[in-house]
Amino acid sequence: MIPDILSLGQYDTVYNFLSLVIAAQLFTAVYLLIALPRILPRYRQAITVAIVVCGIAAYHYFRIFDSFKAAFVTDAVGGRGDYAQAAGAGFNEGYRYVDWLLTVPLLLVELIAVLALARSVQRGLLVRLVPAAALMIILGYPGEISGDNGLRGLFGLLSTVPFAYILYVLFVQLSKSLNQQPAGVRRILSQLRFLLLLSWGVYPIAYLLPLLSIAGPDAWVYKQVGYSIADILAKAVYALIIFQVARIKSFDDDPTFADIERSRDGAPARA
Amino acid sequence: MIPDILSLGQYDTVYNFLSLVIAAQLFTAVYLLIALPRILPRYRQAITVAIVVCGIAAYHYFRIFDSFKAAFVTDAVGGRGDYAQAAGAGFNEGYRYVDWLLTVPLLLVELIAVLALARSVQRGLLVRLVPAAALMIILGYPGEISGDNGLRGLFGLLSTVPFAYILYVLFVQLSKSLNQQPAGVRRILSQLRFLLLLSWGVYPIAYLLPLLSIAGPDAWVYKQVGYSIADILAKAVYALIIFQVARIKSFDDDPTFADIERSRDGAPARA
Repeated sequence: MIPDILSLGQYDTVYNFLSLVIAAQLFTAVYLLIALPRILPRYRQAITVAIVVCGIAAYHYFRIFDSFKAAFVTDAVGGRGDYAQAAGAGFNEGYRYVDWLLTVPLLLVELIAVLALARSVQRGLLVRLVPAAALMIILGYPGEISGDNGLRGLFGLLSTVPFAYILYVLFVQLSKSLNQQPAGVRRILSQLRFLLLLSWGVYPIAYLLPLLSIAGPDAWVYKQVGYSIADILAKAVYALIIFQVARIKSFDDDPTFADIERSRDGAPARA
Repeated sequence: MIPDILSLGQYDTVYNFLSLVIAAQLFTAVYLLIALPRILPRYRQAITVAIVVCGIAAYHYFRIFDSFKAAFVTDAVGGRGDYAQAAGAGFNEGYRYVDWLLTVPLLLVELIAVLALARSVQRGLLVRLVPAAALMIILGYPGEISGDNGLRGLFGLLSTVPFAYILYVLFVQLSKSLNQQPAGVRRILSQLRFLLLLSWGVYPIAYLLPLLSIAGPDAWVYKQVGYSIADILAKAVYALIIFQVARIKSFDDDPTFADIERSRDGAPARA
């Protein structure tokens, strides 16, 4: 499953994408940490969770990056040749799942927290979404570490059941609660759910790449690139949109706060 | 006691769990640090101690993780084979005790601090609990580093004496003080004591695994997994519940603070 040989271009592609993910996650977390006072206290829980999610992902990508660097070596001077698997180290293929097990449930917590729903509604959504997210990850893992395409397909299918359930809760059940949100927030939340659908949709595609007829290292390289892009969209970009929701809602809740913040941004105060 | 050979699956299991503990402790500390302004100043001492405990644990797990990675190597290309003990490096089995000697007494300080009891009552509880906790760890250590199951059993038994005393203080003596706490706090504190009992109960089980007939590397792998899960429950999850207690008490103490923090769409302002 892990290729024996990577061409220089393939090696550099994986190297650059893994590093891009570290930069994206780490500095999204830093940005949000600094921007935290620019929203009302009631929305800071959502952004705090977003910071933690991006931080956890950055930590795990440091590990994945190190694991990748240790797993492939080149004999060519200056490294301008093919890379082969190194002795004494392996690329830990299942490692992303440790990350997802922690972060994917938290992504749903972010979304629910920023809505600031009534406590009972919030609890009702979380007890559905969080276990479903954990189950989705746990069911994907045996297929990922298996070299067998049949097992990969089977567990991929099983994992789709909780995924479908999450989409049902987000797109059907949650819609009722969204009617109470301000119009600007409703529109951006719709976009957010589609980003979630789009970025989470990349994972099953990357997961199923080995089942396609793309042979050899290419499938593996595309899988790494696919997971990397999906992780940036699903965590960093998603967190920035959540922050935007929190900011619109803060302005909507408290006109005084809005005026102070707006005047700082250059827009004239409303009053 | 440390196995000569680990299969690939055993190696990855220990690797993933040790790394999971790092992520859990580090980002619980980060979360609590950011969330500190969301409780009243009088409860920040408890959460500050919780942040320090999670930080110390994360630091020690970086060491344990590195020690583990250095201690086992594979000859197979790509690392997709068994791992054997490396020459020139060994896994530092007793290292966890350095962590526990610092963190376990502090876990009890967290619990007592968040109750915000009268100063004399607080002092009375701490002079009982802190030395007992330190003694419990010190007495466990000779058994842990000994290869002899008789010594392991003996020191395990000795270590149980201060453990039983701690439980007596928490479940009998502390109960009198809990009656003055608000009802919501009393319930969550009960849960907290049971989490403490449950998670601290994992340590003696993991400790005594080598005495059972589970032979070879499995006992050692289960012990590492057991300690890892127990450390996550006893420090990170525990800290998050302590934060929850601090938040409920903050809201209860100061309705204005509660109104600012509570979401507008959810719970309406009380005034």
